[in-house]
Amino acid sequence: MRSVAIVGLGLIGGSMAVDLRRRGFADEIIGVENDQLNAEAALKMGLADRIASAEEAFAQADIIVLAVPVDAAAKLLPQALDAVAGSERIVIDVCSVKEMMCRVAAGHRARANYVATHPMAGTEYSGPWAAMPGLFDGRACIFCDVEESSRKAVSRIEELYAALNMRVTYMRSDAHDMHVAYVSHISHVTSFALALTVLDKEKDEKHIFDLASGGFSSTVRLAKSNADMWVPILQQNRDNVLRVIDTYIEKMQDFRSAIDTLDGDEIRGLIEDANKIKRIIR
Amino acid sequence: MRSVAIVGLGLIGGSMAVDLRRRGFADEIIGVENDQLNAEAALKMGLADRIASAEEAFAQADIIVLAVPVDAAAKLLPQALDAVAGSERIVIDVCSVKEMMCRVAAGHRARANYVATHPMAGTEYSGPWAAMPGLFDGRACIFCDVEESSRKAVSRIEELYAALNMRVTYMRSDAHDMHVAYVSHISHVTSFALALTVLDKEKDEKHIFDLASGGFSSTVRLAKSNADMWVPILQQNRDNVLRVIDTYIEKMQDFRSAIDTLDGDEIRGLIEDANKIKRIIR
Repeated sequence: MRSVAIVGLGLIGGSMAVDLRRRGFADEIIGVENDQLNAEAALKMGLADRIASAEEAFAQADIIVLAVPVDAAAKLLPQALDAVAGSERIVIDVCSVKEMMCRVAAGHRARANYVATHPMAGTEYSGPWAAMPGLFDGRACIFCDVEESSRKAVSRIEELYAALNMRVTYMRSDAHDMHVAYVSHISHVTSFALALTVLDKEKDEKHIFDLASGGFSSTVRLAKSNADMWVPILQQNRDNVLRVIDTYIEKMQDFRSAIDTLDGDEIRGLIEDANKIKRIIR
Repeated sequence: MRSVAIVGLGLIGGSMAVDLRRRGFADEIIGVENDQLNAEAALKMGLADRIASAEEAFAQADIIVLAVPVDAAAKLLPQALDAVAGSERIVIDVCSVKEMMCRVAAGHRARANYVATHPMAGTEYSGPWAAMPGLFDGRACIFCDVEESSRKAVSRIEELYAALNMRVTYMRSDAHDMHVAYVSHISHVTSFALALTVLDKEKDEKHIFDLASGGFSSTVRLAKSNADMWVPILQQNRDNVLRVIDTYIEKMQDFRSAIDTLDGDEIRGLIEDANKIKRIIR
């Protein structure tokens, strides 16, 4: 019997729970969930077979998944590694910043039992209510610094993500953090800023939102994302995120000055360069 | 028999053609399309019954719809109004900037035959291939400065948009242009800038896009939008767009400085304020 402990039964942890069981990877899901309401909801929805304390779960599970915000995950990681030291049991996390997590694990006697992973899937919703089957299907999962993990642990976690239908990519944790700043973190910051811009205006212009079109909704969608998750991501990935924000603000300034001077050729050049994103995003 | 001339059989014009005919509002669709390939495709797809020159179409149609980029529409409007002067025939445009169009029409002897409208629907695609049934269903359509149009013309165009299942809102053209700067134009500029930021990086980091997640795709989607349409919009709505860009850059700077100083409370405050967009966008 294979038991998987999932710490944090929110969008990611809850969705993993659903698919790991229905696809036969896990025989038992042990949920660890500090929030009482979330814990009860998760049980009621059948996301976990039982709720346990972190200590209990760390002592019992074959695989421990840390699916909490990255600051909480960084605190729990040494404790989880202490619990699995000397065994073949495995700890993974699913956070979207990896360098700090790998630094926390570095030098721990159970470092080889830890696999740093980032399943790149999600929605702008959170909590056990946001969990859904199939969330990970066809998406990319990044494994970081796998040379620090035991081969056996890595291959078992590859099986786990195979059960989630993810394609695995391998990367150094510092390269990972730089890449996700570009393809994920900046999108969240731009959406937050867009929401703040429009909400500011709305104070005196109540009906502005009657007009909100599909384009606006899709651009601002990520602004619904949860602060508990995003504050520590932006803190831990500060240097990369700041670099991307600076480039981004430069591009906005390029647009601003082209529009200000009514320079049609310049505006067209910027838009046509931006259009090249078509070859990448379907 | 009611004939509708549609100048520009792209996403908007083509989609109007489809629904106006299948819902019985138009008996005949006369297409005006300068691009030969688009014209042939539109005929083949059955978007129009026949292709005519602007002169012919302006002389014959009961309703003339200008569905070309706003700079082209502003040039065609006087000619279309000349053609309908003294009749009960009507000219409308569907551009997403309205003040300039209304200024062009102002004082024309056939001003009362013109209704300035903005059906707020669309996708990031363009051309007759992008046309689709049902594009307008349930969306808002803004009529501007209707007191300058004849009541009969307004009520006939209300029927036209009723056939497209749109809900009509009335607004002054200057208020319209300010509002759309917030709920539409800025979203396009932020998407263009995001695409440029990420494409810049991609030059030396080829595999960055393997990782592009759903969040990134939705935020950058509008960056596929067509320059022919967007250059004149950004030019004609310059003052409003610049104001929104400035507020937006300020919000980005707020994030930048909160992240730079690792000020968790400040980052949290910004994100939680941005989250209030939830009450507006489902």
